[in-house]
Amino acid sequence: MEQEFSSKLLENAVSELARLPGVGRKTALRLALHLLRQDTDVAVGLGRAIIDLREGITYCRVCHNISETEICPVCANPARDKSKVCVVETVKDVMSFENTRQFDGVYHVLGGLISPIDGIGPDSLEIDSLIERVSNGGIKEVILALSPTMEGDTTNFYIYRKLMGHDVVVTQLSRGVSVGNEIDYTDEVTLGRSLVNRVPFAK
Amino acid sequence: MEQEFSSKLLENAVSELARLPGVGRKTALRLALHLLRQDTDVAVGLGRAIIDLREGITYCRVCHNISETEICPVCANPARDKSKVCVVETVKDVMSFENTRQFDGVYHVLGGLISPIDGIGPDSLEIDSLIERVSNGGIKEVILALSPTMEGDTTNFYIYRKLMGHDVVVTQLSRGVSVGNEIDYTDEVTLGRSLVNRVPFAK
Repeated sequence: MEQEFSSKLLENAVSELARLPGVGRKTALRLALHLLRQDTDVAVGLGRAIIDLREGITYCRVCHNISETEICPVCANPARDKSKVCVVETVKDVMSFENTRQFDGVYHVLGGLISPIDGIGPDSLEIDSLIERVSNGGIKEVILALSPTMEGDTTNFYIYRKLMGHDVVVTQLSRGVSVGNEIDYTDEVTLGRSLVNRVPFAK
Repeated sequence: MEQEFSSKLLENAVSELARLPGVGRKTALRLALHLLRQDTDVAVGLGRAIIDLREGITYCRVCHNISETEICPVCANPARDKSKVCVVETVKDVMSFENTRQFDGVYHVLGGLISPIDGIGPDSLEIDSLIERVSNGGIKEVILALSPTMEGDTTNFYIYRKLMGHDVVVTQLSRGVSVGNEIDYTDEVTLGRSLVNRVPFAK
C-alpha cells in the first residue's frame, strides 16, 4: 500500500530513498523528515555527493576497480608489482586487501562469482579480460582470492583451467583457523583443513 | 577508526551517507557501492530529490506543518473546519491523522514535547504561537493529540493551563484498549483507564 503525502517533493524523496537496499517506505520517510530538520547544507551536501559519486566514478580499464581516472591509482602506481595479480570478487574486496597493507601487486575485479543458480555464468564476469591480461605477458603469478564458498571454489577452478597452458603460477589464499578465533568455535571443515595443511612452526 | 578510500568522491559520499540516522560507515559504503552499480539516472534522481526536498519545502506559517507554499494545503483548504485545531507533536503525526480520514479540522505542530531532562522547555516549542492563534479568535475547540507519555501529559497540562480563560473547549484523544489488540496483551494502566472511562455500548 502506497502512502500518499501532501507534498510532491516529499513523495518523490521518499520514493527515491526507498529504492536503496534495506530501506522501506517507513525508513525513507524517517530519513526525509530528518533531512528536513537539518541545515540546508547537510541535505544539499548529501545530494551533491551522491550525484558526483555516480557521475565522477568509472571503472579502471585494466583491473575493473572503481576509479576517477581511466586507469586506477593502484594500476597507475609504478611502485606496485605488475607481475602479481590478485583476483577478487568485488570492489569492496580490493579495499579489504588494501587495508591489510600486505600486498604490493595489482588486482583484477571479476564483478561476481560463477553461480548457475543465479544465472551468472563466466561470460557475465571479467574472466576473459583476466585471461587476456595474462596472455599479454608480464604476469608471473595469479592469486585467486575468492570467498571459500561453493561459488568461489567453482570460479577458482574455472579460472585455473583457463590459465592452464599459460606460463603463470596460480596460487590461492591459505585456509585455516582465523587469527584470534578460538579452536572451540572453528567449524570442523576449516579445522580439518588447517591440520592437513599444517606449516612449519614460526616463532 | 576512519577507513580511507582511494577515491575522494567515494570518501565524500560515504561520509555524507554516514551522517544519516542509523547509518554507519559500513552501511554507507554498501549504499554507495550499490548506487555505483545502478544506472546513472537512479543515483542522480536520488541526489536531486534530496536537494529539491530540502530547498523546496518550508513550514506553514499558520500550523508549522511542512509545506511547499507559505500556507500548507490543509490550512488553505476552504473545506476544512478552522474552528477545530488538533495539536500534534510532529509533522509525521499530521500524516498519521490525515491517513485516518476522520478529521476535517486543522492542525498545529508543536515540533516536540516539553522534556526538562532533554532541555526542551515550552519556549523551544510552538506553544506561544498556538495561544496566539486561539487569542485571534475563530477557534472553538483545541484537541490535544499528544502521545500518552510523561512528556505528552506534561505538555498537555501546560497547554491546558495556558488556554484557561480563553473561550475554547479543550479535549484530548480517548485512551483505552487498542482496536484489534487482545485484552491479554494490554497493559494494566491502559486496561484500568479503559474501564473507568467506559462509554455506552454502541452496536
